[in-house]
Amino acid sequence: MPENMKEFELILQIQRETLVRAQGVKLGIGDDAAVLEIPAGQDLVVATDTLNAGIHFPVDTSPRDIGYKCLAVNLSDLAALGATPRWALLSLSLPQADSEWLRSFTAGFRSLAEPCGVALVGGDTTSGPLSISLTALGVIEPGRQLLRSGAHAGDLIVVSGTLGGAARILDLLQDGAGLSERRRADRQRLDRHLLDRPRPRLQLGQSLVGFASACIDISDGLLADLGHLLKASGCAARLATDSLPAPAILKGLEDAQRWSYQLAGGDDYELLFTLPRSHAAMIKIWRKALDIDLSVIGEIEAGEGICCMGPDGQEFRPQRTGFDHFRKRS
Amino acid sequence: MPENMKEFELILQIQRETLVRAQGVKLGIGDDAAVLEIPAGQDLVVATDTLNAGIHFPVDTSPRDIGYKCLAVNLSDLAALGATPRWALLSLSLPQADSEWLRSFTAGFRSLAEPCGVALVGGDTTSGPLSISLTALGVIEPGRQLLRSGAHAGDLIVVSGTLGGAARILDLLQDGAGLSERRRADRQRLDRHLLDRPRPRLQLGQSLVGFASACIDISDGLLADLGHLLKASGCAARLATDSLPAPAILKGLEDAQRWSYQLAGGDDYELLFTLPRSHAAMIKIWRKALDIDLSVIGEIEAGEGICCMGPDGQEFRPQRTGFDHFRKRS
Repeated sequence: MPENMKEFELILQIQRETLVRAQGVKLGIGDDAAVLEIPAGQDLVVATDTLNAGIHFPVDTSPRDIGYKCLAVNLSDLAALGATPRWALLSLSLPQADSEWLRSFTAGFRSLAEPCGVALVGGDTTSGPLSISLTALGVIEPGRQLLRSGAHAGDLIVVSGTLGGAARILDLLQDGAGLSERRRADRQRLDRHLLDRPRPRLQLGQSLVGFASACIDISDGLLADLGHLLKASGCAARLATDSLPAPAILKGLEDAQRWSYQLAGGDDYELLFTLPRSHAAMIKIWRKALDIDLSVIGEIEAGEGICCMGPDGQEFRPQRTGFDHFRKRS
Repeated sequence: MPENMKEFELILQIQRETLVRAQGVKLGIGDDAAVLEIPAGQDLVVATDTLNAGIHFPVDTSPRDIGYKCLAVNLSDLAALGATPRWALLSLSLPQADSEWLRSFTAGFRSLAEPCGVALVGGDTTSGPLSISLTALGVIEPGRQLLRSGAHAGDLIVVSGTLGGAARILDLLQDGAGLSERRRADRQRLDRHLLDRPRPRLQLGQSLVGFASACIDISDGLLADLGHLLKASGCAARLATDSLPAPAILKGLEDAQRWSYQLAGGDDYELLFTLPRSHAAMIKIWRKALDIDLSVIGEIEAGEGICCMGPDGQEFRPQRTGFDHFRKRS
């Protein structure tokens, strides 16, 4: 009877295709709101992020990768607090009701939601320029969350994974017109996962609880996000450029160009945390237990600002220092 | 130091201008995620909705009204469950970082958030076509939520407020080119609140807990949303067209045109609920206690579908029956 069968059918399709068993869902998709049971003695942790086509992902990104990434970037925020994700709400604006597109999108979403135990419990579909807003909900023991504000002079600065890969891929895709079609296709196949498939560091975040003094995820670039952490903590940082972890795609670049990607490139979604030296031995343990790269890239100091030291003992200042969402990049 | 000062400043401005005291905020705006304390023995209720310019509001809508409405439509969803709102997350896509626009938007947001005790605890600002995604979080006693699925044959069908006003205003605005400028301006001043300032029926929703057998908010039109309730409850409905409550702006229209607005117009955000006849006396009590219009518009029956009876005893079938978000209206 309702004329808005199309929207209704899309919602049913999302419901069917994103089914993940999760605890505490008393009322899921299909009513005006969802009802969730928070385990006794746990706090709720919530984060929300929007991805707009052409701003947060290239317009040619596959719906499968978009479905993965919209969840990944929000889980990365929960990881930065050390929380355990449980549920998600999805607001989807689509130029038209496209069941095929949606099937691919939900497959990508589920490929991350399932291993992370995240259930989609509600949302909204509407017409509009392609845009995805996702709210991720998780839980944590009261008082255990990692904050941006706990760093102290003397703490080690540590990052997971590698830095600068996503920004490099984005530049290559945008400069791709100058490459031969064959090379361009190869490049995209090999490396696009750095941009399209960031891995939220949930296990690492949870492992850091009780050890790290501060934590943030690197979404806007190392300097920008470290800057937020320092501002919240009221201290300064000294980084060593040659200790910044580089993905294979940055090998072969001039030092200054590589460092710029590592210091200022966005979209890596790695965790940056500070660690009192008394816990330094944990780094090796986490590396092994979580099978993850962890690099000590510098040290917290008294004062303010960030000093990046090159291997020649000279300070290095990259030309761009972070990603501004109000400066379009494609 | 970060180049994304603009985005950072916008976030600070939002934080400053939306400050509302609310319980349970352990960590608000300014970290990767918010941490909220759910009162012991309460469940969490969450809803999310996106408003896109030109789809969910006319492009000439004031930022103040947009700020109000993005919260109102989500609180309306919480009201339909009988929940008490507490917190909100806001994802804002703006064509450019515009501090003036934002000031007006946050003023509208706060004008509703403050009396409702809703604290903005997080969100995201980014560039993109104007779009607002809001997630509202509230609490409810376990097992007390109103559902769409509890209606039974014999229950009265009741709606709050009036129906069809928002859709009528929208049509008048769109046909406005044919009106003289003076009349157009008058009309906008007098009646746009029906479209721009829906009142979420939170007190009513909370009052219905333990009495109403089913409840839904009317966002897509009476027939569409009643249809969802009937489908969830497995029953049918009979409506009397002359009992449908009309706002002043529908007075003077032909019966068929008025009924069409009331039955199929979207954006009213009134509550539709079903009430066992044994509780019928509560209607008068709620009207007085909450100072709210409540109209009995029909009755739940066995079977399926909706039958709208005109005063002549003939069935009335409106030409359009609901609002499809995938059929643009401006």
